[in-house]
Amino acid sequence: MNVKTIQLKKTILENNDQDADLLRSQLKEDQTYYMNIMSSPGSGKTTTLLGTIKGLQQLAGLKIGVMEADIDSDVDARTIAEQAGVPSVQLHTGGMCHLDADMSRQGLREIGSKELDLVFLENVGNLVCPAEFDTGAVKSAVILSVPEGDDKPLKYPLMFREADVVLVNKIDAMPAFDFDMERFKSNLAGCNDKAPVFFISAATGEGMDAWCQWLNDEVREYLK
Amino acid sequence: MNVKTIQLKKTILENNDQDADLLRSQLKEDQTYYMNIMSSPGSGKTTTLLGTIKGLQQLAGLKIGVMEADIDSDVDARTIAEQAGVPSVQLHTGGMCHLDADMSRQGLREIGSKELDLVFLENVGNLVCPAEFDTGAVKSAVILSVPEGDDKPLKYPLMFREADVVLVNKIDAMPAFDFDMERFKSNLAGCNDKAPVFFISAATGEGMDAWCQWLNDEVREYLK
Repeated sequence: MNVKTIQLKKTILENNDQDADLLRSQLKEDQTYYMNIMSSPGSGKTTTLLGTIKGLQQLAGLKIGVMEADIDSDVDARTIAEQAGVPSVQLHTGGMCHLDADMSRQGLREIGSKELDLVFLENVGNLVCPAEFDTGAVKSAVILSVPEGDDKPLKYPLMFREADVVLVNKIDAMPAFDFDMERFKSNLAGCNDKAPVFFISAATGEGMDAWCQWLNDEVREYLK
Repeated sequence: MNVKTIQLKKTILENNDQDADLLRSQLKEDQTYYMNIMSSPGSGKTTTLLGTIKGLQQLAGLKIGVMEADIDSDVDARTIAEQAGVPSVQLHTGGMCHLDADMSRQGLREIGSKELDLVFLENVGNLVCPAEFDTGAVKSAVILSVPEGDDKPLKYPLMFREADVVLVNKIDAMPAFDFDMERFKSNLAGCNDKAPVFFISAATGEGMDAWCQWLNDEVREYLK
């Protein structure tokens, strides 16, 4: 059977790129590394952050903060504050599906980023909109979880193209799902052949060492 | 440790509601039931649709069509056409994170909805934006998969509030994840106490009969 493809019309306006560059240069002056973390809802951003903070703390004495963006609720910011013991703020987007540079700036001011070496943004759970807006972050990570399937780079190419690093989470669940690592890498290579890929399980800790080491090197190089 | 909550600014404009009502009344005249299916990326919309079509075909002779909306790729429309053998069109949103009533209308025209009893829209995988736009559908279903976690109604309340029916998919994976059915129901009740909930595994077929029976009754009642 033939499949018809229809191109629907698009209406997006933005003027955020300059502002993001400005924020990035301010952060560089302040010696604060800002990392944007994006994923679908429920792919394990908060658990990954908890494990990453723990891993980084074992490597070195970075001063870390976390901004949790959500449409509603503050469960994630509370989890981070309680379990990781680092400064954390909750950003409510009032229904918005993404964060831009100015929204980042509001959060960074609140968390006191000047005193921190590394600030994570846990972006709104969404594989579409967050990729369209430069947050001013030094680097952006995308987390994909195994249950979501290895075809996601085909369906959300912009998100995977924008990623500076890709984490594949919940690898402990691989036996229960039809996820093929090589097929995923090949799908990813179609839109991004530069980003390093880390296969991890934030729940069991598997693969977290390599990822934390990579990130630690990144931040150390930036702070030099 | 205290958690600060900051309300970020919001800039959303729309004028789609009237158009959606108009589309609904046209579809009623044409005797076409239009169902909008929403979820995160990778929660199993396509597999659920395949199982649902099979279940409905065993119950009765409904003429069914499927519109697959995606940012990119046509893997889902091809899957539906090949495996379910029903008319299917792929809608590319050109980067847009949702469908509105006019975009629905473009797709319905292409698929020839006048000749069909039931048209499914597989919306863009996203728990935020699609909930903000009335597609003109008679009913909207939300699929949440077990690996995403039982806290999602807290984080994406609009999506769960807009749902007329909720499917919890991948229940066969429940032993591997910390998903509590009662906690989920309680979280859902906080924003929606009307929508029926079906626990299913589209992969194994568990729970699909009750859901298909419910949907069949819905459509039959509408077509009377």
